[in-house]
Amino acid sequence: MQAVGMVVEYNPFHNGHHYFLRQAMKQTGANVAVAVMSGNFTQRGEPTIVDKWTRARAALESGVDLVVELPVFYAAQPAHRFAAGALAILNALQVHRVAFGAEHPEWDFAALVAAEQRFNQAEFDQYNATYATQFNQQLHAQTGVELRDPNDILAFAYTKAVLANDYSIQLTPVQRRGSDYHDQQIHGQIASASAIRQAVMAGEDFSATVPPAMKAALDKVATVPSWNSLYPLLRNQLIQAPLDCLAQTYQMAEGLEHRMKEVAQRSLRFDDFIHGVKTKRYTYAHLLRMCLYTTLQLSEDEVAARVDHPYIHILGFTARGREYLHQVKKQVPVPIFTKVSQGMRDGFYNLDYRAGKLYQNFTVVEQDLKHPPIMIR
Amino acid sequence: MQAVGMVVEYNPFHNGHHYFLRQAMKQTGANVAVAVMSGNFTQRGEPTIVDKWTRARAALESGVDLVVELPVFYAAQPAHRFAAGALAILNALQVHRVAFGAEHPEWDFAALVAAEQRFNQAEFDQYNATYATQFNQQLHAQTGVELRDPNDILAFAYTKAVLANDYSIQLTPVQRRGSDYHDQQIHGQIASASAIRQAVMAGEDFSATVPPAMKAALDKVATVPSWNSLYPLLRNQLIQAPLDCLAQTYQMAEGLEHRMKEVAQRSLRFDDFIHGVKTKRYTYAHLLRMCLYTTLQLSEDEVAARVDHPYIHILGFTARGREYLHQVKKQVPVPIFTKVSQGMRDGFYNLDYRAGKLYQNFTVVEQDLKHPPIMIR
Repeated sequence: MQAVGMVVEYNPFHNGHHYFLRQAMKQTGANVAVAVMSGNFTQRGEPTIVDKWTRARAALESGVDLVVELPVFYAAQPAHRFAAGALAILNALQVHRVAFGAEHPEWDFAALVAAEQRFNQAEFDQYNATYATQFNQQLHAQTGVELRDPNDILAFAYTKAVLANDYSIQLTPVQRRGSDYHDQQIHGQIASASAIRQAVMAGEDFSATVPPAMKAALDKVATVPSWNSLYPLLRNQLIQAPLDCLAQTYQMAEGLEHRMKEVAQRSLRFDDFIHGVKTKRYTYAHLLRMCLYTTLQLSEDEVAARVDHPYIHILGFTARGREYLHQVKKQVPVPIFTKVSQGMRDGFYNLDYRAGKLYQNFTVVEQDLKHPPIMIR
Repeated sequence: MQAVGMVVEYNPFHNGHHYFLRQAMKQTGANVAVAVMSGNFTQRGEPTIVDKWTRARAALESGVDLVVELPVFYAAQPAHRFAAGALAILNALQVHRVAFGAEHPEWDFAALVAAEQRFNQAEFDQYNATYATQFNQQLHAQTGVELRDPNDILAFAYTKAVLANDYSIQLTPVQRRGSDYHDQQIHGQIASASAIRQAVMAGEDFSATVPPAMKAALDKVATVPSWNSLYPLLRNQLIQAPLDCLAQTYQMAEGLEHRMKEVAQRSLRFDDFIHGVKTKRYTYAHLLRMCLYTTLQLSEDEVAARVDHPYIHILGFTARGREYLHQVKKQVPVPIFTKVSQGMRDGFYNLDYRAGKLYQNFTVVEQDLKHPPIMIR
């Protein structure tokens, strides 16, 4: 069997994902599609529109053969950690071809990665600019290229992860088509996930853009999960926890805990909070992830203990996916499981479990403990 | 001027409180009424039906001259600490007569307090009985009396505080009349606070039982504040905080943190949680206070730093109350203030401030920072 791996959020699973899947199979000649999918929180640190089980089911019913959870300590991270975590899992699953959506498939990403090695770290010292901005300044000076599009940034990160770890993985860019990532309008059958979420939120028609299984699930969404609803929990943590405790939150740096506490104290609504905290130094994506880390009481130590020990939580599979698993499982060098036991819950899986409990503010469904995998066909 | 002190919750202020106030003035011959009132959380650790400002205003409009906040580290405590904190504040305010509602004004509480000195501490070792039960077993063995009624328990605690601190305070029992504390039905103009809260919750008529100012405020209550609404915050703290951190919560003992975490993980509703946590060892009141301490992330150290340093936060006064304050303020040996500054917020007042922020889940009104006192007439 020949597998192709994909790193996805499926938030929600839509026709563009379906198109990408078929292209990835065709371009790589694969007959098994393996998706590593963010769980209930996205790379931007936001809750997904429907839970991971619903998204995994839609993907499996649309041609994906195996859906594996990207643990939250990889998923809710900047591109380079997100990509590195996902590739570590695909590599462990013996996947040797990974496809990704590309804006510039013609670029020599290996050359860009090599250029980064020559960056001057001392130049990353502008406290009124984001890391990404300073990164692009140096990249442009060296190569004439800037990484602006999220897909370009991820392509760079995948390339870097493969080279750094010497993975036996061939990266295959798939030219994107249809709606631009940033397009917030729905035109025809291919729309961005973001445009579809907006349509669900506004009660507008999105039915042409998603397969039937996803459509049925999205029709049941009464309130789109967002930080607006989780804000009381975040706010309480920022108000009740002492500053020295908040300072130990993962990635809390440069005194950001003071600013977050102060703004939380005076902000009753999440919009006021996030705009009050925003500076030129940090992107909204970074601040949203900080909201998640804070609410999960995630510490530097906990992340350090997890990132070097990945595991593979199977969310679901088709008959073909199961056959693939059966074929490779003896070579998988990390824990692999389809059901979270009480011991896992209190042990290595605890952080994902806690993220699932946080997501339970949007669903009565137990997200992890003893949840069986989805089996299709 | 001759002041009479009262320790109150006014949750809500009702005709029974009004009757008690007039009796207290009459029996003591006082011409100034000083109330030390729980803030936004009661002795049982529950949020009050309306905020402290609304309750203070109703009391001031009904004949109370001065309303002082009972800090939350005294208010949300078992009877002996609640009473001791309240009397420390009244004593600091130079109040020498304190009236309290009594079920058994004929009892010799000083003799009961003396009996407690002879208790055998080694007998408080039954892990399947509450402290109150074991206390009453010993008290009954020594005196033939048991303290069952909340008012008797408080009378005992006031007496003990006066004796232990050698306060120059004369305690004046006021015979209760009208509805029993436990009566959940409204009959006529005097009803228990609990019966009135039930009526507000059920949308039933309670208008005969409260003065007009309180009636107007209660009519605006859409959802009665309760732990049902705060449970997501409590649950998140119990799930996200590590056990060793939860174990440092004030009064967390005998491994209760394990039980609270485990039950929170599986309970989506507060009712399921509190019933799941309940054992013969702890009363509901104790467990509700544990919920509050946990949500406020209150530590043993923080309480220890506060209880020996009371302060007097004036919520409001009449002209007569202001005159009384003016007369005594030079003799008040602790900080006394009418407005919470930013320095107080981040300093000695921080815990009350945090309790106010928790209560902001029920109101948009800023509860403390720069809130002016209520002035009547």
